[in-house]
Amino acid sequence: MNPTKKRLIEVGLPLMLQRGYNEVGINTLLSAAGVPKGSFYHHFTDKEDYALQVVDAYVARVSADLDAALLDGSLSPLARVRRFFDLTMEMYREQGYLGCLLGGLGQELSGINERFRSKIEGCFSGISERLAQCLEEARQRGDLPADSDTTRMADLLVDCWEGAALRSRMRQDPASLNAMLDFFFESVTADGDR
Amino acid sequence: MNPTKKRLIEVGLPLMLQRGYNEVGINTLLSAAGVPKGSFYHHFTDKEDYALQVVDAYVARVSADLDAALLDGSLSPLARVRRFFDLTMEMYREQGYLGCLLGGLGQELSGINERFRSKIEGCFSGISERLAQCLEEARQRGDLPADSDTTRMADLLVDCWEGAALRSRMRQDPASLNAMLDFFFESVTADGDR
Repeated sequence: MNPTKKRLIEVGLPLMLQRGYNEVGINTLLSAAGVPKGSFYHHFTDKEDYALQVVDAYVARVSADLDAALLDGSLSPLARVRRFFDLTMEMYREQGYLGCLLGGLGQELSGINERFRSKIEGCFSGISERLAQCLEEARQRGDLPADSDTTRMADLLVDCWEGAALRSRMRQDPASLNAMLDFFFESVTADGDR
Repeated sequence: MNPTKKRLIEVGLPLMLQRGYNEVGINTLLSAAGVPKGSFYHHFTDKEDYALQVVDAYVARVSADLDAALLDGSLSPLARVRRFFDLTMEMYREQGYLGCLLGGLGQELSGINERFRSKIEGCFSGISERLAQCLEEARQRGDLPADSDTTRMADLLVDCWEGAALRSRMRQDPASLNAMLDFFFESVTADGDR
């Protein structure tokens, strides 16, 4: 990727994570990146196009974390799923507990912008599908009850995580994230004892 | 409350729920309510003051639903908690599945506006405290395990709900809400069987 384009995306990601889409103007991005306006419109059609590419950059990080966690053969399938969320929590910590960019832009924009709504819903679904595959592996080994609906379980995990991420943003601390993960993993594995 | 003030709040609530804070201008509110600009500034200091009062109106509805559900002596404590979320889901249905105003404005504004952040975090905490009281009643009757941390459980319930509400907004349907509630209530009551 062109270095100026890369730089614009890199400075915009934390700005949009903290302040949202509408509050971040193009001039703010330009001064943060130290590039002239012409460069912006050379690389992006408009702010919407730009923000969608910021989402792509965010999702690339999430996908790398999914790979790192879910392809780690030294861990059991359930431990891989937990590992993914631990990596995500580490990213949130680095970012100052501002929550999830997908949840943030999804809340802010899905009621007014169909491109963002479908883009972000697609990201959630994609994450959920990858988690579902790993949960399915856990089910097949007997780490989850045989009748578990792993697709539904993965969606639930993503949804509850997003709520805990919102609360971590409100409180700027990770307690809600840990509480949610502990509850989820205790519950799904306890099911096996019934 | 003055009828013009009431009208301004009533027209703004669905607008902010759908479009968020930044996307709804004062002129939009004035034309939706059919009132002149002077009236707005007679009743509200500025848009922030106005939106905080819209949040109050939203929370008044939530509080009424909490009362209706949690004070219903014909239901068990756990059924009262579930009833509250069923009433909330009914409100979401009426509103076209746009999610929760607290989650929406919390995501959009908590990174840039401390008044909104603390206000909305206070609303979440208040809802959670009321639910915790009812969960505590359930624990005392033996409907939850004796060692349940009902404060933590209520926070978790509110957090997961908010995530499911976001997903219902992304998909404009209630499936994520029902899935989350089913999982939560099955899990906490299954704990009792361990």
